[in-house]
Order: sequence, then C-alpha cells, then structure tokens
Amino acid sequence: MGGSDAFGDRLAEAVRRTGVPGCVGLDPHLDRLPDAVARGVSPAEAARIFCLGAVEAVAGVVPAVKPQVAFFEALGAPGVAALEEVVAAARAAGLLVVLDAKRGDIGSTAEAYAHGTLDDDGPLGADAVTLSPYLGPESLAPFLVRCEQGKGVFVLVRTSNPGAGPWQVDGPDPVAPRVAAWVEAESARSAGATGLGSVGAVVAATVRDEAAAWRAAMPHAWLLVPGFGAQGGTLEDVRALVRPDGLGALVNSSRGVLFPRPGVGEDDWRAGIARRAGELAARLAPLGPGGAVSGKGAPKV
Amino acid sequence: MGGSDAFGDRLAEAVRRTGVPGCVGLDPHLDRLPDAVARGVSPAEAARIFCLGAVEAVAGVVPAVKPQVAFFEALGAPGVAALEEVVAAARAAGLLVVLDAKRGDIGSTAEAYAHGTLDDDGPLGADAVTLSPYLGPESLAPFLVRCEQGKGVFVLVRTSNPGAGPWQVDGPDPVAPRVAAWVEAESARSAGATGLGSVGAVVAATVRDEAAAWRAAMPHAWLLVPGFGAQGGTLEDVRALVRPDGLGALVNSSRGVLFPRPGVGEDDWRAGIARRAGELAARLAPLGPGGAVSGKGAPKV
Repeated sequence: MGGSDAFGDRLAEAVRRTGVPGCVGLDPHLDRLPDAVARGVSPAEAARIFCLGAVEAVAGVVPAVKPQVAFFEALGAPGVAALEEVVAAARAAGLLVVLDAKRGDIGSTAEAYAHGTLDDDGPLGADAVTLSPYLGPESLAPFLVRCEQGKGVFVLVRTSNPGAGPWQVDGPDPVAPRVAAWVEAESARSAGATGLGSVGAVVAATVRDEAAAWRAAMPHAWLLVPGFGAQGGTLEDVRALVRPDGLGALVNSSRGVLFPRPGVGEDDWRAGIARRAGELAARLAPLGPGGAVSGKGAPKV
Repeated sequence: MGGSDAFGDRLAEAVRRTGVPGCVGLDPHLDRLPDAVARGVSPAEAARIFCLGAVEAVAGVVPAVKPQVAFFEALGAPGVAALEEVVAAARAAGLLVVLDAKRGDIGSTAEAYAHGTLDDDGPLGADAVTLSPYLGPESLAPFLVRCEQGKGVFVLVRTSNPGAGPWQVDGPDPVAPRVAAWVEAESARSAGATGLGSVGAVVAATVRDEAAAWRAAMPHAWLLVPGFGAQGGTLEDVRALVRPDGLGALVNSSRGVLFPRPGVGEDDWRAGIARRAGELAARLAPLGPGGAVSGKGAPKV
C-alpha cells in the first residue's frame, strides 16, 4: 500500500496538519497521578480517567499519542480494559495511536500479537506498534502484512537508555545497523508520496553524535524518537533526525507533558497537560514542516 | 537468594519430584479449541475453560506450565482476566508458572513489566517470565531484583525459528554469545545448592549442532527449550542441553500436548491432554533426574 491510506502517509499528513513532528506518551505512573484523579477510585480507573483527559488535552495539538502498554498491564485486566478505551478515544479524537509494546515473537504467536495490537477487529486496533527485533526479520512478518493494510510499526534500532550499547551498537559487528538496513529496505518498499514508508525505527534522542548517521541509514523510515525532555534529549539532539522538509521523525515526550515538575502543584491537571503539550508543540514546530519554511513558529503547510 | 526459596532451586525440586525436565505450553489457539469448549461462549471464556482444564490435566505430571501471553492478549481484557485465573489455578495446583511474554523495556517501564508479570501483589504473580534482551543488560535490572525474591527469568539467547540467525548468531561478533555470557554470570551469582541460578536462558531445541556449546557457555543457567515436538526438535536435539544429573533444562511442548494431531478427533479433550502430557513426560524422563540413573523410565530420585 503506497496510497494515502498507508500509515507512512497518514503520519505525514498528521504532522503537516499540526505542524508538530512529535507525540505525547501516555504513561500513567500511578504514583504521579493527580490526587483529584486517584482519590477514591481503583488504580485502573484512575489511569483511565487520567489518560482520557490527556487525550482530550492534546488532541489537535500533536499528531499522535504513544500509550505505554506496561503501565496498563501492571494494573491487570481492568488496566487493559482502560487501555482499550483510551486507544479508542484517541483514534476518535483524530490522533494517531502508536502503541508502545515492544513485542517480538515467532510464528502463530507473532500473529497473535499483531492481531491483538493492530487489527481493527481486535481488542486495540492501534495505528502502529513498537517491536523488538531479537527474534529476527521473519518474526516481524505478521506485522508487515498489517503495514500493507494501513498500519505501521517502529522497530527498536537504537534505544535511549545509557546501557543500551553492549547488545546494540558495541563491538566490530553490532546488530543495530543490520536491523536499520532491514528497516530501510522495508520502508523504501512501502514508501508513499512523501518518500516515507510504514516500517519505521526507534532511534533515541540521547545519542546526538549518531543521529545523522541513523537518519542517513534509513532515509525512507519514520523514526520514533524517545528520550526527549525528561530523559535528557534536547532540540539539538533530535534536529538531525528530522528531514529537511520537517517530516520523518516523531519526537516523543511522556512525563514532561503529563506531569508538572516534581514539587510543582497545579489546580487543573487537564489544563496543565494542555499547556505543556502546547509548549512541546512550540518547541518542536521549528523542526517541523512549517518551521522548515519560516524558521520559527508553527505555520500550517 | 540462594536458599530453597530461590527459583532455580524450586525448579530443580519440581523437576526432581516429577522426574520430568519439561513443561507444557498453554497456547489457546482459538481455531484449535475443542468444539465442546468453544461452542456458545466468548473466545476469552473458551480460552479460560480450555486452559483451566489443561492445568488440571497436567498437574503432577510435569513440573511447570508456560502460558503464552500473546494468545490471551489477543482476546482483550477478558482474555487477560482469563490468563490471571489460569496462572492462579496453576500455582494452586503446584505447578510452576513460566510466563512467556518476551518483555523488554527500560527504566520505570521495565519496572512496570516486572511488577505486572512477577510480583505476588501484582495481577499475575508468575514464578518466572521470558525476556527479550535487545535493550541491554540494564533493562533487565528490575527483573533481577525479583530473582533475589524467589522469582526467575529466561532471557532470549538462541530462538527456535529458522530465521533467527541474522540478528542473533550470524556474523563475526554476534550478540547471542554476549547475552549468554551475561546470563551465565548472573546465574552463577544466584546459584543455589544445585549449582543452578534463577537467571536462565531460552535456547532452542532446533539447533542440535549448537546445543553442547550453549550448555557449556551457561553451566549455571536453567535453559528453557522451545521447539520440541510440533516445531521439529527431537529428543536427540535436546539431550545435550540437559546436565548429566537430569537438571538444567526445561523442554517445552505446547501444541503437541494441547491438541490432537490435525484430523484426529477425540471424545474427551481433557483426557487427551492428560494422555499426551503423560507421553511427553515419558519421552523426556530418560533425560531427567531419574533417567540419568536408570537409563529408562522415570523413577523418582
């Protein structure tokens, strides 16, 4: 699928529409939820209320949200039910949903994960999902089938944690460049009008000296970029991951948007999220499709 | 923790008690569930009934079960609720539960996965969980904390799919041996009276020519061995993965126990699972603690 229903094209359209090459992570850390949300309800209900509020607050401001599955799963079946509702609400609000699940398995099990995360007749029906590549290219095949049907994936290539090196990029023949080569081949094959495909990669914001090389290694791939903001990545760190036309990267911020700085109270948590999402958008817009033209602000293209 | 509450020791005790170095995978493939189970109920309810029946049928026959999370997640929140019930029933029946989730993430997200899969005050409280190592040694740290508290992990090292090579073992400096070295260091550090620790590895049954080398690379590690039976691995393929004392490997069979051969009907699906579990036990027992002594059958040690 290379038409306008392809995920790569849909994401390009959403980034152009908002002017923002970024997304907001939905990580309902229980110990950081506002008292007004958590008081008197179950943890899963608190996560549900909080994330539905966040969806409402960021819709129209950023092109996408990235729910972190782990935080919902930790709450058991009611948490998973909350996740289903949050994903549905985000899609209904016009946000693309990148499910951060880092799944990876083989054969019929990989097929079950693909169905469970992406299929519209499955429980979640997200637009895209993050994948872990350790089990080899063939383990990703069931997800590629979904990429032919309008969905997308982001395969872990270079992650943002300080200890990612040993099993990704260290040594004379590390695995990460090989995964990147596979991503580039698949994204080129699925590239639409924008030259960007539906098979993307996760590349961290925290390794600035590698950014240009990863961008050059995967010219047709959307890059999902964690590590911005709370994890230490700066605008300069991510600049080289965005293409000159402002497309090609989706910079994520989770805690920096969801929660006030530690020790800072706020009267209205929804308004706080909306305000911080606006600040994120304003920071990222100069790198986006509008910023590439004007050099400042976030004019629509 | 090196005492008898350590997972490595608990698994040794369970293998000795049953005489069987193997486990049964709980993979509720919807399209293969017996009509008597699936008729007139929701998919999640069918999975629940089937897996609870399987737990009852294999308890006392094998030391452990390995629920495959993907099949439950594909059924949404009711599927996850079914998984919770199946895990609880297995533990209550005296089976160790190895949750096949292949999780891998960083920081507070990895912590959420560790809580969600292993903690007894979390939704599942499994005895052990499978992990994917792509994000580096530090990403496994929250799980090591649980290994100090009686829980276990099996880190993907060498998987059973034909296409596993490119990103695991191919090239001049592949990642799998590095992951194995880390597993060995951690399992040696946590080794109890049996010389086996709580940090194990997944090593496939389908790569016979590598088996002795993986065993030698991780002498203190429990090996979880997929690929036996339906995936093509034979008794000879797994022999070199078991230590001479019959401990150190847990050979998994899922479809071969759960389902009759395609085209073969059966009147009583529970009895069918019990019979096939008995056949699996009889096949594996010669490699186990009793078989190491007698060379045949499954005498208790």
